Amino acid sequence: MPIALITDFGTQDAYVGIMKGVIVTLCPTAPLIDLTHAIPPQDLVAARFTLLSAYPYLPTGTVYLVVVDPGVGTRRRAIAVQTSRGFLVGPDNGVLSGVWPNDDRVEAVELTHADYWRGAHPSATFHGRDIFAPVAAHLANGVALTQLGPTIDAQSLVQLPRPAPVALAGGWEGAVQYIDRFGNAATTIPASAVDSGPWSLTVGTTTLSGTTTYGAVAPGTALALVGSHGFVEIAINQGSAQATFGLMVGDRIQVTRLPQPPSTAC
Amino acid sequence: MPIALITDFGTQDAYVGIMKGVIVTLCPTAPLIDLTHAIPPQDLVAARFTLLSAYPYLPTGTVYLVVVDPGVGTRRRAIAVQTSRGFLVGPDNGVLSGVWPNDDRVEAVELTHADYWRGAHPSATFHGRDIFAPVAAHLANGVALTQLGPTIDAQSLVQLPRPAPVALAGGWEGAVQYIDRFGNAATTIPASAVDSGPWSLTVGTTTLSGTTTYGAVAPGTALALVGSHGFVEIAINQGSAQATFGLMVGDRIQVTRLPQPPSTAC
Amino acid sequence: MPIALITDFGTQDAYVGIMKGVIVTLCPTAPLIDLTHAIPPQDLVAARFTLLSAYPYLPTGTVYLVVVDPGVGTRRRAIAVQTSRGFLVGPDNGVLSGVWPNDDRVEAVELTHADYWRGAHPSATFHGRDIFAPVAAHLANGVALTQLGPTIDAQSLVQLPRPAPVALAGGWEGAVQYIDRFGNAATTIPASAVDSGPWSLTVGTTTLSGTTTYGAVAPGTALALVGSHGFVEIAINQGSAQATFGLMVGDRIQVTRLPQPPSTAC
Repeated sequence: MPIALITDFGTQDAYVGIMKGVIVTLCPTAPLIDLTHAIPPQDLVAARFTLLSAYPYLPTGTVYLVVVDPGVGTRRRAIAVQTSRGFLVGPDNGVLSGVWPNDDRVEAVELTHADYWRGAHPSATFHGRDIFAPVAAHLANGVALTQLGPTIDAQSLVQLPRPAPVALAGGWEGAVQYIDRFGNAATTIPASAVDSGPWSLTVGTTTLSGTTTYGAVAPGTALALVGSHGFVEIAINQGSAQATFGLMVGDRIQVTRLPQPPSTAC
Repeated sequence: MPIALITDFGTQDAYVGIMKGVIVTLCPTAPLIDLTHAIPPQDLVAARFTLLSAYPYLPTGTVYLVVVDPGVGTRRRAIAVQTSRGFLVGPDNGVLSGVWPNDDRVEAVELTHADYWRGAHPSATFHGRDIFAPVAAHLANGVALTQLGPTIDAQSLVQLPRPAPVALAGGWEGAVQYIDRFGNAATTIPASAVDSGPWSLTVGTTTLSGTTTYGAVAPGTALALVGSHGFVEIAINQGSAQATFGLMVGDRIQVTRLPQPPSTAC
Repeated sequence: MPIALITDFGTQDAYVGIMKGVIVTLCPTAPLIDLTHAIPPQDLVAARFTLLSAYPYLPTGTVYLVVVDPGVGTRRRAIAVQTSRGFLVGPDNGVLSGVWPNDDRVEAVELTHADYWRGAHPSATFHGRDIFAPVAAHLANGVALTQLGPTIDAQSLVQLPRPAPVALAGGWEGAVQYIDRFGNAATTIPASAVDSGPWSLTVGTTTLSGTTTYGAVAPGTALALVGSHGFVEIAINQGSAQATFGLMVGDRIQVTRLPQPPSTAC
């Protein structure tokens, strides 16, 4: 089964390669899939969104290794979680909390059994190398979750506050939750909020018509659409909505349902 | 067979990893080779050059998955092309046109058979995930090209204008067509134009002697040579020609054949 | 066996993918592990540190392919080195010299047998593609080192000067040798210098207490600790020591052993 990696390590240093070296030593055949290593340092929210957006597209059984770990070496727990689609391995600081709360087949353990670490005395600064990577490799090898440490109550796991849209008369208020490399801004409004008819989105003093794809408007024109991650998104065809509107994560936006146009059917 | 990827997705978001997840779900064993994901957004010319420069060095049978797709969700066709060296998969916008026009064993299909997509209802914004990645995986699994959709005339495929050198008395005029991370500037002049004797290159008011390798001149010194991609290149030993000369893609340059030095043979 | 790659090629161009294409053509099954491709252009010292820090964590038998090669095409030798833990392949310019000088099972050859190259006429500018990558693939396939060319005396290999700490009364003077993406600065002082009791580190006019992990101090607070690479490191919890202290590679630092606190044991 594949092991998918999310870290804030960047790719200029050897940290990611070192984790892969530890994995390959234990499990030479697992495909290793980099989801991203460019999470801004210690940005738990961006890591959670990345996991959430990739999770439906990898094979069932995938081991997700998420190392964004500002509390490394402190009392935060190291955990592994089994879900209906695979395994999550990382620190118990909320980075994993995007995908398991709605899953009714969740089991969690605390990673205390040093037999599955890279040695009994892990470094105080790089649990990715010394605990999380070897545990991920053992899971990919078929080791049972419960071998890794004592079961813990999933309700006790740290959850990051989830940005819930607020219902307004005729629509929703939400916020920008992630901005991608193209400058497209994913909001917290799910696709289901806009699937019943025409809609518009307001950001600052600008109102954009909801449409279906970038090419539906002329190059350089702003639009709102449902992005590939399943959330309403602000974009500019062949341009950067982030740059044009000065968007930042947390900026408030409003989505408005528009009256249905008169039917043209007979 | 390997699947080689070229995109403008960058690596900060999970888009590339998501495509790999889709591929690995269908074809767990194909080696995945990243050619680059740093194509400037929507830069079809840079993507074409990248494909052209890598194409001779991957195994015969490689599937090239090229997703630089400003027209996603519009009427541009999705295509797969079989050549004498492998398969090309991507949008019909010219990104694939660097390698097949000189190949006499080209077949092309339009990707219309939804059985080979990730589902019958692809998103309007991410055909890389929903159409191109699964098609590439099926080709790597041995599915025949003609299963993927109706055959189309290769002559109907979109070609980007190819930058042809212009013959001058005693040489050629061409242009910078690609600048790499070292600041080396590949021109449109092929190696064959300079393989018959001494030559020089003029860019702006500077004339550089043609030589064979960076280390042939002192560090910090400018030179012209045939780059590893097979085109005449402007470079600075251990420096950046782009920064020193302020080069941009499209800048005109001239190559001049020099008189043969008198023979010293008996 | 895996092939681990270190280059200064960056990932915007196809150079790394081209080397992988050459490798996969010869050896389709070797896992390819990117240690980094972001070595600053021609920075032999950073490449050596990267190899040194990753080397203990990859499987025995790994082939390390290191292409930081400002002298490509000149008379610098192309070499392969067999150590007790694997194989090193690259130019003889010192990039490989971080790991073999303390190994008593070292053999070295000069890469002169063109049968193991990509062709008898390698380019003058890209030995990574034409010599080093195919040699690495052949080693991963089990070709014996001595097939690759004549044995050379390991003592004749180029070594980069190694930054040795200087003993002071009550401590050591050293220097910053590497700065990572988080702004953590690894010094030349090994862990063994500070493992016998309390210590402090002085950089410029600032003195920091030696501790064990980032989270031992409040966010934004500077600290000194032994980093995961095994050297004393200057860091800021959830911040950048490089930015705060204006650190650069080569900056001098001092480590001071502190008096043992009175024993509290009975």
